[in-house]
Amino acid sequence: MTHQETLGIKMLRKEYDHIILLAHGSPDIRWKEPFETLYQQVTEAYGAEQVSLAYMELTTPSLEDVVEQLDPTHKHIAVLPLFLAVGRHLRRDVPAQITALQTDQLQITLLPPIGDDDLVKQAMQTVVATHLGKV
Amino acid sequence: MTHQETLGIKMLRKEYDHIILLAHGSPDIRWKEPFETLYQQVTEAYGAEQVSLAYMELTTPSLEDVVEQLDPTHKHIAVLPLFLAVGRHLRRDVPAQITALQTDQLQITLLPPIGDDDLVKQAMQTVVATHLGKV
Repeated sequence: MTHQETLGIKMLRKEYDHIILLAHGSPDIRWKEPFETLYQQVTEAYGAEQVSLAYMELTTPSLEDVVEQLDPTHKHIAVLPLFLAVGRHLRRDVPAQITALQTDQLQITLLPPIGDDDLVKQAMQTVVATHLGKV
Repeated sequence: MTHQETLGIKMLRKEYDHIILLAHGSPDIRWKEPFETLYQQVTEAYGAEQVSLAYMELTTPSLEDVVEQLDPTHKHIAVLPLFLAVGRHLRRDVPAQITALQTDQLQITLLPPIGDDDLVKQAMQTVVATHLGKV
């Protein structure tokens, strides 16, 4: 690892005090399972103080619930949408929720959805290829 | 690769004539972009005759549109939901759509959602860890 890369990682680690994973929500309670599993795995690996899980609608806890219970020492948090694409919710609804929750003491950054990451895109291509019998 | 593994792959390749990638749909037309990109990448790699892209609601083409235009020689196709979790849509709405579209000449299998695959789950964990500055 170069000096620049080390610096880059350190800067990233300092950028946010906390990340809220934000899934869509569903009237079906079992819909939470994969998101709760992901949340448990990352909190077991990296600690519960750095990450929360919230739902945009229909399922609790809401983004409001989670922000309300945040450690007040957090000054700059990020919301990572557990979505595959950006539609009306991530262009309009979630930014409005975030605007309503931001204060002079708490800055909230909306990250691109998790499906926008090359790692997830590559994994999905491989899954499709596997179902096509190509892998 | 063992003889059994070779046989396994051959059996998988014969299992479905065609796979329909099924995304949710959105009133925002730009929401299609990542799914169209995934579709283009897999058709460029493996051929357009083996895979289609459809949307459950709000966006075209629908599952009905795509099934109607399938090569009539296809006898057993699969629907791969581009969803991260199973909720009301995948437990109720999509199975009902599939039941309505199946005929004596066309069997349609609903696969688990793409987010249920370990490769996608692992990729999402890594993305979260990266945003936490842990990778």
